[in-house]
Amino acid sequence: MDDKPLDLAARAVARIERHEARVRAFTSYDPARIRLQAEEAPDGPLRGLSVGVKDIIETRDYPTTHGSPIYAANHPSSDAACVALLRQAGALCVGKTVTTEFAFFRPGATVNPYDVARTPGGSSSGSAAAVAAGMIDLGLASQTAASLTRPASYCGIVGFKPSYGRYALAGVKSLAPSFDTLGTLAADVETVARADAVLKGPVPAATTLAARPPARIGVCRTPWWSHAEPGTRAAMEVAAECFRAHAHVEDVDLSDYALAADMHVTIMSYEAAQSLAWEYAARKERLSPQITQLIETGRAIAYDTYRDALRQAATLRERIAGVFDGFDVLLAPAAPGEAPLRETGTGNPIFSRLWTLLRLPTVTLPGPTGENGLPVGVQLLARLDADEDLLDWSAWAEKILPQRPRPAICGVA
Amino acid sequence: MDDKPLDLAARAVARIERHEARVRAFTSYDPARIRLQAEEAPDGPLRGLSVGVKDIIETRDYPTTHGSPIYAANHPSSDAACVALLRQAGALCVGKTVTTEFAFFRPGATVNPYDVARTPGGSSSGSAAAVAAGMIDLGLASQTAASLTRPASYCGIVGFKPSYGRYALAGVKSLAPSFDTLGTLAADVETVARADAVLKGPVPAATTLAARPPARIGVCRTPWWSHAEPGTRAAMEVAAECFRAHAHVEDVDLSDYALAADMHVTIMSYEAAQSLAWEYAARKERLSPQITQLIETGRAIAYDTYRDALRQAATLRERIAGVFDGFDVLLAPAAPGEAPLRETGTGNPIFSRLWTLLRLPTVTLPGPTGENGLPVGVQLLARLDADEDLLDWSAWAEKILPQRPRPAICGVA
Repeated sequence: MDDKPLDLAARAVARIERHEARVRAFTSYDPARIRLQAEEAPDGPLRGLSVGVKDIIETRDYPTTHGSPIYAANHPSSDAACVALLRQAGALCVGKTVTTEFAFFRPGATVNPYDVARTPGGSSSGSAAAVAAGMIDLGLASQTAASLTRPASYCGIVGFKPSYGRYALAGVKSLAPSFDTLGTLAADVETVARADAVLKGPVPAATTLAARPPARIGVCRTPWWSHAEPGTRAAMEVAAECFRAHAHVEDVDLSDYALAADMHVTIMSYEAAQSLAWEYAARKERLSPQITQLIETGRAIAYDTYRDALRQAATLRERIAGVFDGFDVLLAPAAPGEAPLRETGTGNPIFSRLWTLLRLPTVTLPGPTGENGLPVGVQLLARLDADEDLLDWSAWAEKILPQRPRPAICGVA
Repeated sequence: MDDKPLDLAARAVARIERHEARVRAFTSYDPARIRLQAEEAPDGPLRGLSVGVKDIIETRDYPTTHGSPIYAANHPSSDAACVALLRQAGALCVGKTVTTEFAFFRPGATVNPYDVARTPGGSSSGSAAAVAAGMIDLGLASQTAASLTRPASYCGIVGFKPSYGRYALAGVKSLAPSFDTLGTLAADVETVARADAVLKGPVPAATTLAARPPARIGVCRTPWWSHAEPGTRAAMEVAAECFRAHAHVEDVDLSDYALAADMHVTIMSYEAAQSLAWEYAARKERLSPQITQLIETGRAIAYDTYRDALRQAATLRERIAGVFDGFDVLLAPAAPGEAPLRETGTGNPIFSRLWTLLRLPTVTLPGPTGENGLPVGVQLLARLDADEDLLDWSAWAEKILPQRPRPAICGVA
């Protein structure tokens, strides 16, 4: 592939502009800055990779709005650490992608590329839609509840939320520090693994990805299985069946983890009310009803209730380690089903609250399409800090899961 | 006390200006803004409390320099969560206090108010010196190694570094996220407890402090006792002797925790190199030799070495819980001795690396003065998340420790 700077830049811009008018994945991008960056980009393991940066992540080149009118003119003095690490490895950070307000529930303008009436999911809406539409190679994303896994599932792409703490959050807006995790979205496991080798440390490295099967896979329908729609039920059955030919596959019952969803809501609300204290105190009139309700829920929680939830979460984290003594990987639903209609919001985070609370690494893989022909994903989870293993296993799983014809993007073949 | 807004503001300004020319604790403060804030300050549990904000904490009113020329013109769009919480409780955030560069080792202009040739300690230099000189009631501070405990000790004041994660870090510059902890400095335990009741949650509350003795106190000279100078040795003996009249006091040997100091350096260096990736990649020529060396140390550490250190740290955290089954409180040195001369730096963090690694809450209390008549503190530590108990016990300890005549401030009686 030709990687002369101006060609790289021209290609990156053309990919964005082919679909941006319909997908509306970006809050800002600038061809002149992309060209400048391409000229300055060092050689490195991500040379030429085109990256969209979720707009809760600070950048010097572009405003960082956090999806809120409060920050419409916010111009940080520096790039977030993750942006600097990617650029240092040769990647082009081509622009800022749409986020819901403060990575919570109020949606931005982005549509699902497979059906413009549907949500791309939230909060990493723009990064997911842009990857699905082929506008970028990699989307920087984050997850506090289900903000990476859900859009990956709705957009039929690969999502990697690493173990809590693996990527530096310097320069990323806080929502709930007990859960906030930076991650990535891409078309395949190899790309998120390439980014992982750069984002995990100060010095860019090449990926060591080696696709291989896990020995023991646990199928975990979770305590929220009643929320699973036909598309998700089918995706789980297809994946389990597919894995059964290569690995030991067994059902895992986590019904005694059912309280985790409420625990997650308690901790997230309390911490969001702390982290967004300035916005609530000084700019309340410019907050959406959704974020206001989250903050006010948090303000109504007693400190001792919050501490109890933290203690219970720590206990569950110890217990889940025992589950992984019996399994390498858990297979679980990534979302209730296909992407819902945009007017209903960004979808239900219920299938990720437990895993985010447990801080486990998770890879979302595209499953079969659902009853409306839209993507439905599944997620693979591993023990805390087994990120490299999980990526290897996911690269294997990606290959053996059935390939389905991809629906047209925004009606463009 | 008269709390009409203009009187509050005038008093706050007069206190700063009495000593600022000599102490140089502030990077910025502005009488007009202080008056405006006093007029807008709500009634609340911290009504009228005068607060200095360490300059790695974002503020809308004042530049936030992080102690670095790179950020000399950095004007954040919002206040950090901690600043908003304090203001919402009625406190006056009167200005920004000097920090070392990025809360590491390159000192700012602040002097030790008890001897202008000596360091106030770092990195929370300005907050500590301003509290010691009576210029503010409360200093916001942070600790990644010993950045709060050491200046508290050198300046003869009370320091409270709560359990890791207790106060929201939204809007605080990252150095090493595994350790970064926000805390406070004040003249007495009651003031840090009043601030705690506000900083721990989204809704301001009044303190529930109740001075009471712990039943069992462990005297822990730590594996670094050979670094203890006569002042610290005397402070430890005086405190232990004093406590012995009221509680069960026994020596605790933690010689098997000696590796914690190296572990702390490994994790801190690696994470600092991640967190400061932009500064190193884009503004290297404006970094000090000290921070450059930290980052380059981090860049030379292999990822697996870092992960091993994290795993060993987690193991030590589990083990220390067992120690606290036998003791309510540990008494430990706060610093090697009296404040060293300014030209030698900001002092040695060795006596806090272990405790910061373990994420325990700690209160520094003034001990007897050392051989040069300068302050020397001791620290009390409790089990993770036993912050309220620790404050109660510290309020008791503060009362029974011998009161020494305070040395003159900058030669001003």
